[in-house]
Amino acid sequence: MEKWLVGVDVGGTNIKFAFLSDDGDIVYRWSIPTDVTNDGQNIIPDIASSILHKLHENNQTTNNVKGIGIGAPAFMNMETGFIFEAINLGWKDIDIKSELERRLMLPVVIDNDANVAAIGEMWKGAGIGSKDLLCITIGTGIGGGIIINGEIVHGTNGMAGEIGHITVNLENGILCNCGKYGCLETKSSATGMVQQAIAEIDNHPESLLFISYKQTGQLTAKMIVQAALEKDEYALKIVDTSCYYLGLAIANIANTINPSRIVIGGGVSKAGSLLLNSIQKYFNQFALPRVKMGADLAIATLGNDAGVIGAAWLVKNKL
Amino acid sequence: MEKWLVGVDVGGTNIKFAFLSDDGDIVYRWSIPTDVTNDGQNIIPDIASSILHKLHENNQTTNNVKGIGIGAPAFMNMETGFIFEAINLGWKDIDIKSELERRLMLPVVIDNDANVAAIGEMWKGAGIGSKDLLCITIGTGIGGGIIINGEIVHGTNGMAGEIGHITVNLENGILCNCGKYGCLETKSSATGMVQQAIAEIDNHPESLLFISYKQTGQLTAKMIVQAALEKDEYALKIVDTSCYYLGLAIANIANTINPSRIVIGGGVSKAGSLLLNSIQKYFNQFALPRVKMGADLAIATLGNDAGVIGAAWLVKNKL
Repeated sequence: MEKWLVGVDVGGTNIKFAFLSDDGDIVYRWSIPTDVTNDGQNIIPDIASSILHKLHENNQTTNNVKGIGIGAPAFMNMETGFIFEAINLGWKDIDIKSELERRLMLPVVIDNDANVAAIGEMWKGAGIGSKDLLCITIGTGIGGGIIINGEIVHGTNGMAGEIGHITVNLENGILCNCGKYGCLETKSSATGMVQQAIAEIDNHPESLLFISYKQTGQLTAKMIVQAALEKDEYALKIVDTSCYYLGLAIANIANTINPSRIVIGGGVSKAGSLLLNSIQKYFNQFALPRVKMGADLAIATLGNDAGVIGAAWLVKNKL
Repeated sequence: MEKWLVGVDVGGTNIKFAFLSDDGDIVYRWSIPTDVTNDGQNIIPDIASSILHKLHENNQTTNNVKGIGIGAPAFMNMETGFIFEAINLGWKDIDIKSELERRLMLPVVIDNDANVAAIGEMWKGAGIGSKDLLCITIGTGIGGGIIINGEIVHGTNGMAGEIGHITVNLENGILCNCGKYGCLETKSSATGMVQQAIAEIDNHPESLLFISYKQTGQLTAKMIVQAALEKDEYALKIVDTSCYYLGLAIANIANTINPSRIVIGGGVSKAGSLLLNSIQKYFNQFALPRVKMGADLAIATLGNDAGVIGAAWLVKNKL
């Protein structure tokens, strides 16, 4: 029988797992909460025992597994599998590869979560057939994964794809978490959209957002997207501004690396064609004609599965 | 005896040639004028006969040549060696690889001139030892060559590295040759610097540039750089603006691909440390701390030889 690939997507809240066929089809998936107590030192034992437990439940042993692929939100050396730091997990200087290999007696390969999600979309999602791919994840922050000639781009010290910190706003840029001003993230992430919406909400008493905000004291990107889908003008203006800066940043990246596909994922991408059409409009304005001609924009299709699928690709192709 | 590599750098004015050792040392170099009459149809015969002639002069035959590498300012398919268009040469739909191979009975490999120059700097110039390299050539326009994991990045339709057309100026951007507004080229190329200088020259009668311009009716980037080196305040301001946008664009690219070295070449790079220090200052402002830590900025060292050396690298590594 063909051996399974195991994909693991370590997040700050949950760890997602899947057993996959050699073709990247998910055979079985599950998740467990991430135990971030004690500097995350239970995470690796939890991963190992959860995999063994689920293999047993499926009447399988490690003999039926080719290897373990892991995506984690961390600074790491992908070749040695050594993690320097994963702030959301509490990890510092963790040799995850050796430790998991010792516990499971199986080969382990790791990469960072944004890269693994990009590979997932390339293998089985909105990036199928594309060897030059830019993936953008719009959530609380903005992350990116870049694939060139079918390979993940890591850069010289693992920082490739930090496109949330491209400077798009030169005049009166807002302070970003990274310490710089005017980053894409301050304008186009979920957080950035909410910040913008709140800043001028009192000038828009006619907006659905004004009403919700005054009633609940809360405003989320989800509410903004929902109101925009209901054609609320103020919400549409916020989404449009977000898409303007996304279109600009994506076009500038595309003029540099000339991708064949640009995949937009993350929570905000649930706005679907509203978001995509607006990004496309500004992308067309800022990309060179031949660059534009070469690139399709698409919404990510794998959702929460992108990470485990990309991690399984690592097992198949990098072990 | 070890076979020679032949590097050819086709430009709109001259064609540069060199015979190189297998280690990339230039054994012999020469150049001929580019005959752009009749849609450039004499160029390929000229290249072939010039190589044969110089081999003969050096008491060698094609038996002593491993192959021919060519860099050209063209849109092409690098794998088939087919050129779709080279505006400065008058070429359209030219199968340069087949035609030269037929004439010389030697294998031929081609790539575009910006990429070939970047490879040259990686092999023997300011990029030595770096596998993740960004090369920027600042001349009449601004070109770029990107190397990731030691390989040239072409992109999906050969447009990778078009960094002169990154939009840096959102408000009141100047119209660029490409049809867009606010491109890096409009601010930081030789042409862009001259445009800026002339636009406000009448407000700066104290400047050396004012005096030269009024006397000669001419203003060049070389004059601006020279005046800046002589601490002329207006010239320094023009150079500073140019470097501000270069530093911004380079940092945004670096946040995306995380290079280990950034090499700045072209005519304007003759300003040397004046330019480099100023670009570095703005690069530091706009790059993420870890991205900044990973990247050295340097001035290109190969000058006019970068093209023939990079073309020879193609022969060594791609044939």
